[in-house]
Amino acid sequence: NLKKIVNKTHAADLSRVFSSLSILQQVTLFRMVEDVDQKGILLSELGDDVCINLIEALKLEDVIPVFEDMPSDDAADLLDKLPEEKADDILRKMKKEGSEEVEELLGYDADTAGGIMVPDFIALREDMTAGEAIRSLQKEHMDVEMPFYLYVVDEYGKLVGVSSLRQLVVVAPDTPLREFMSTDVFSVRTDTDQEDVAKLVARYDILAVPVVDDTNQLMGIVTVDDVIDIFREEATEDILKMAGTGADSIETQSVFKSMKIRLPWLFASCIGGIAATFIISSFEETLSKVAYLAAFIPIVMGMGGNIGTQSSTIVVRGISTGLLDVRDIWSVVFKELSVGFLLGLTYGILIGTVAQVQHGIFALGAAVAMAVISSMSVAALVGSMVPMLFAKINVDPAVATGPFVTTSIDIIAVFLYFQIATLLLGL
Amino acid sequence: NLKKIVNKTHAADLSRVFSSLSILQQVTLFRMVEDVDQKGILLSELGDDVCINLIEALKLEDVIPVFEDMPSDDAADLLDKLPEEKADDILRKMKKEGSEEVEELLGYDADTAGGIMVPDFIALREDMTAGEAIRSLQKEHMDVEMPFYLYVVDEYGKLVGVSSLRQLVVVAPDTPLREFMSTDVFSVRTDTDQEDVAKLVARYDILAVPVVDDTNQLMGIVTVDDVIDIFREEATEDILKMAGTGADSIETQSVFKSMKIRLPWLFASCIGGIAATFIISSFEETLSKVAYLAAFIPIVMGMGGNIGTQSSTIVVRGISTGLLDVRDIWSVVFKELSVGFLLGLTYGILIGTVAQVQHGIFALGAAVAMAVISSMSVAALVGSMVPMLFAKINVDPAVATGPFVTTSIDIIAVFLYFQIATLLLGL
Ligand SMILES: [Mg+2]
Ligand SMILES: [Mg+2]
Ligand SMILES: [Mg+2]
Ligand SMILES: [Mg+2]
Ligand SMILES: [Mg+2]
Ligand SMILES: [Mg+2]
Ligand SMILES: [Mg+2]
Ligand SMILES: [Mg+2]
Ligand SMILES: [Mg+2]
Ligand SMILES: [Mg+2]
Ligand SMILES: [Mg+2]
Ligand SMILES: [Mg+2]
Ligand SMILES: [Mg+2]
Repeated sequence: NLKKIVNKTHAADLSRVFSSLSILQQVTLFRMVEDVDQKGILLSELGDDVCINLIEALKLEDVIPVFEDMPSDDAADLLDKLPEEKADDILRKMKKEGSEEVEELLGYDADTAGGIMVPDFIALREDMTAGEAIRSLQKEHMDVEMPFYLYVVDEYGKLVGVSSLRQLVVVAPDTPLREFMSTDVFSVRTDTDQEDVAKLVARYDILAVPVVDDTNQLMGIVTVDDVIDIFREEATEDILKMAGTGADSIETQSVFKSMKIRLPWLFASCIGGIAATFIISSFEETLSKVAYLAAFIPIVMGMGGNIGTQSSTIVVRGISTGLLDVRDIWSVVFKELSVGFLLGLTYGILIGTVAQVQHGIFALGAAVAMAVISSMSVAALVGSMVPMLFAKINVDPAVATGPFVTTSIDIIAVFLYFQIATLLLGL
Repeated sequence: NLKKIVNKTHAADLSRVFSSLSILQQVTLFRMVEDVDQKGILLSELGDDVCINLIEALKLEDVIPVFEDMPSDDAADLLDKLPEEKADDILRKMKKEGSEEVEELLGYDADTAGGIMVPDFIALREDMTAGEAIRSLQKEHMDVEMPFYLYVVDEYGKLVGVSSLRQLVVVAPDTPLREFMSTDVFSVRTDTDQEDVAKLVARYDILAVPVVDDTNQLMGIVTVDDVIDIFREEATEDILKMAGTGADSIETQSVFKSMKIRLPWLFASCIGGIAATFIISSFEETLSKVAYLAAFIPIVMGMGGNIGTQSSTIVVRGISTGLLDVRDIWSVVFKELSVGFLLGLTYGILIGTVAQVQHGIFALGAAVAMAVISSMSVAALVGSMVPMLFAKINVDPAVATGPFVTTSIDIIAVFLYFQIATLLLGL
């Protein structure tokens, strides 16, 4: 009865319940799944920790057929996660054909086209006729993942064009592929970064992109379902990096693992904070005369910090979606600086007026206003320029936006505030 | 010569250069494109402002054929952006068949399956045989966007199954579709939120999902290329909201538009900052006795702010990727609180020691340490709980993470610090 339900449920849904089951229950449930395809999807969709524990708990005979049946990109991804010994065991026991494919994929960097491609695709020789092609499709190629693009290769296996099932049935059966294929075929190289592969697929609205080696030999294809995963991963990575939590998905980690990932990112703001204590201490004389100056530290820091976060977020996301071009650095920075100055002027006058009303001292109001204006301007400048510069030298701009930008803005804001106040109040 | 280059360039690439051309140059370039398909892609890929200006500058005769040829979801999206009068003009002059389709789509909310579906798909009657189906595909349906799923409907047009080109050629030509179609067909309703549509496509790795009305009648399909756009849009929306900049893409806006969007979000932190001035002023007596207390305001605020951002970002992204379940609110919040407390303990002791060494006063060191511990714990608590609660009452959690959480954490941190210092230093 349970078995019936399990086999009627899609493996992607079934995988959701696994994290709340005991390992014995997981093993039982896994064995209940009859379809080996669904077993593969199940393993691919599990969280890293759950998946590793489950595979360790299963017998090798349980998992070998699943690995043999899986698309080789997914098999390679799973093996990548497993302890080396286990992965080797599995590879050794797999049928030679499958294990060779997987091992080849494992040789590519996981973040490149090579690491995410599948080596099963349809490649037809350019001198084949449409009729021959249809017959060959009916005989072989029934199990390829993406039978929508028919890639055309020359006698050396080099990619020369692309056709489609639809074209095959439209032309006369004795027309050679060479004559009706499209020669406008996008391709990427095995070492192309996965983010660039994904952007290409998104830009041209295609369902798969062929991957070639440096001699233009067709090696595999990257399919659109994996492109979706790439975009989601990359967005998560950017978001977490900007928040200063590293790039790993830490929702599902234990308290101590999570601590270990987050601890170093907070160190930047700790060092920055300690620097701020020295800066403020150096104005101790000013402070001891006018203690209420301290009351405006939070607002000066807060306004600078928030506009800095706005600027850097807009720039980081703009770069990664392609809406901003790194070559436009100076116009972008100038625009952000203008926005920062104008918003600073608005809020500076508002907050300065509040300060003036609170304490009845015009110079204090003026100092607070000027501090807000300058800290917001500098924050917009730093917040936009730093990620742009990072991108220019090919460092991930999301990293620049984390605690580093925030912390430097905090320090600059505090310094400017006390410097301006000391001057204006004549202290 | 230029015309040759233009017509060899993919419209998605051509669109990139438009924003740096004068409007006259844009019109000339647009007219050079010969293929009406490519003209449609070009318009769809342009930024909003550029696109509106270009369409206004073109003659109606230039754009009508393009709109008639475009997939109707893209046509509806474009018309949605145009001034109403222009959109009506275009709709009125389009061939009836096309304009009716587009008008129907315009009736759905832009963020729902109805707003992103295309009404051209392949629907075959369940009593058709495989042979009849192949012949009908060769005659009609040559221009559908996604000819990979063959949806099967009953005599009332209700969705009952799905098949594929591949299955058609494998079975005996006189087998009726009913006998070999798959009845496990995922579908969404016209009013399903686009984010849920996208998640379904991602989860089951499908290339399109059929959209049905409330009587299960097949109305259209959502294709995977649009799903990619949805994920990118939604990630951008979340990132910008978390940074407190509203959800519009403001990279390409003018300085004043950008100011207008960002100004209100900074108001929260302004109000919070003003509240902090009152809090600190209420401790003026403490401050005037021990001026150097002010030196630790930035570090107490900064450590709280950063861990609060970490917690809320992890929670917001976790909810939107589905890794965190809103029903687990208390275990998530408890975990974050534990992490916050332990990280607070670590940094509290470190920073307290620095304070003690700097000033040689044990009570000061203890006060700073306790302030860091409590502000980091509270920040992790607030940062994780607020977005969870928002999600629970169906308010977008990304909004909760912007300046609101940051600002409340700032205020709480300042208050705790002065309260603890006043007690411990016996002031
Ligand atoms: Mg891989
Ligand atoms: Mg990457
Ligand atoms: Mg696209
Ligand atoms: Mg794959
Ligand atoms: Mg996949
Ligand atoms: Mg990235
Ligand atoms: Mg801050
Ligand atoms: Mg629409
Ligand atoms: Mg939405
Ligand atoms: Mg998927
Ligand atoms: Mg579309
Ligand atoms: Mg599209
Ligand atoms: Mg959303």
